[in-house]
Amino acid sequence: MRRLIALFTLLAAVMMDAEAASPGKFGELYYQRASLFDKLGVDSTSIVFLGNSLTHGCEWHELFDMPQIKNRGINGDIIEGIRLRLPAVTEGHPAKIFLLCGVNDISHDLSADSIATALGELISEIRTATPTTRLYVESLLPFDSRVDRYKAIAGKEYVVRQVNALLQPIAEQAGATWINVYPAFADDEGYLRSDLSNDGLHLLGPGYLIWRDLLLPYVKE
Amino acid sequence: MRRLIALFTLLAAVMMDAEAASPGKFGELYYQRASLFDKLGVDSTSIVFLGNSLTHGCEWHELFDMPQIKNRGINGDIIEGIRLRLPAVTEGHPAKIFLLCGVNDISHDLSADSIATALGELISEIRTATPTTRLYVESLLPFDSRVDRYKAIAGKEYVVRQVNALLQPIAEQAGATWINVYPAFADDEGYLRSDLSNDGLHLLGPGYLIWRDLLLPYVKE
Repeated sequence: MRRLIALFTLLAAVMMDAEAASPGKFGELYYQRASLFDKLGVDSTSIVFLGNSLTHGCEWHELFDMPQIKNRGINGDIIEGIRLRLPAVTEGHPAKIFLLCGVNDISHDLSADSIATALGELISEIRTATPTTRLYVESLLPFDSRVDRYKAIAGKEYVVRQVNALLQPIAEQAGATWINVYPAFADDEGYLRSDLSNDGLHLLGPGYLIWRDLLLPYVKE
Repeated sequence: MRRLIALFTLLAAVMMDAEAASPGKFGELYYQRASLFDKLGVDSTSIVFLGNSLTHGCEWHELFDMPQIKNRGINGDIIEGIRLRLPAVTEGHPAKIFLLCGVNDISHDLSADSIATALGELISEIRTATPTTRLYVESLLPFDSRVDRYKAIAGKEYVVRQVNALLQPIAEQAGATWINVYPAFADDEGYLRSDLSNDGLHLLGPGYLIWRDLLLPYVKE
């Protein structure tokens, strides 16, 4: 059994290397960042922010003034992409992981059910790979597709709310801490607050300050 | 005179805010990152990495294990974009600035002469705004347009070499330290080494390790 696992790990490594050499299914940036993360590593003191462009876009270690915070965000990443690069995070058994992903899976036209299920599998995988790590699962943020910048999310604001409703019990039953960041970013109609974004999906600086205030108790606890 | 400057500063701030609210000439990401940088700030202990996607793509504070390193890169940024967001860097009078930009200006079809001139003006502006800051100007990296991922740089590898030749004396005469990183990334024909990139322009993890070794003496001095 151990030999089988070792063989599989070797095969996976060879495949990742082959993929890194030429653009694969996730686009070039994915392999650029993933190959960097492989080199940078994570240790037991690390606090890892794991996700897509919303994570990638911020300088989290500066935002919290904590050098042990590591940005493991990749623009455009999906749940499957995060699963494939999980070893570079979990093998270091970080102190904490803050997970936020799913909106790009919505843009790939997946249902709330299948997104919540895939996120549940990702959460289980993290818990199994590194049970000593405190895992925080953040709700998806609202977006505003009326801005019409990203066609693939048009009219799908309701999917965010469905995913969040499904995800909370899944996260909590897996022993993760659920952090509902959605309300702070949504306006009365459930759209991303227009004062916090210029494209209906990503955050301007003031949005990250709100996010910091929401996460601070969990980052510091 | 002071009132005029204050008025101008106020007007500029209002204009920046108006631009932040709606996509401007630099695209949404520029204003997302620039508005974040405004909130994060810089102080006299900071070491700032200032540039475009090559800077944006790395986690420099991890690469050097130095929390005072701040990433001020924005994907796709051009010299003019960096000039406009310079106050958020120079007003904090950082200990050091590592500047690398210009390749996106090449993709905008500017000549080596005009790029080197614009970079010279940027360098002067930095030196004037914060004379206590040690400024390091890095040569442009080679690229490989035969990969055919970025059409706007097709066949323009020679412009990089022209810019670098023009830029070195400009940087040195302005009292900056010139760091020629080009040779470490170029193959025998002057293309970006294919083992370090998957799109002919950006770096994979091993490329950033080479970059770290090149910059380490300057970062630590």
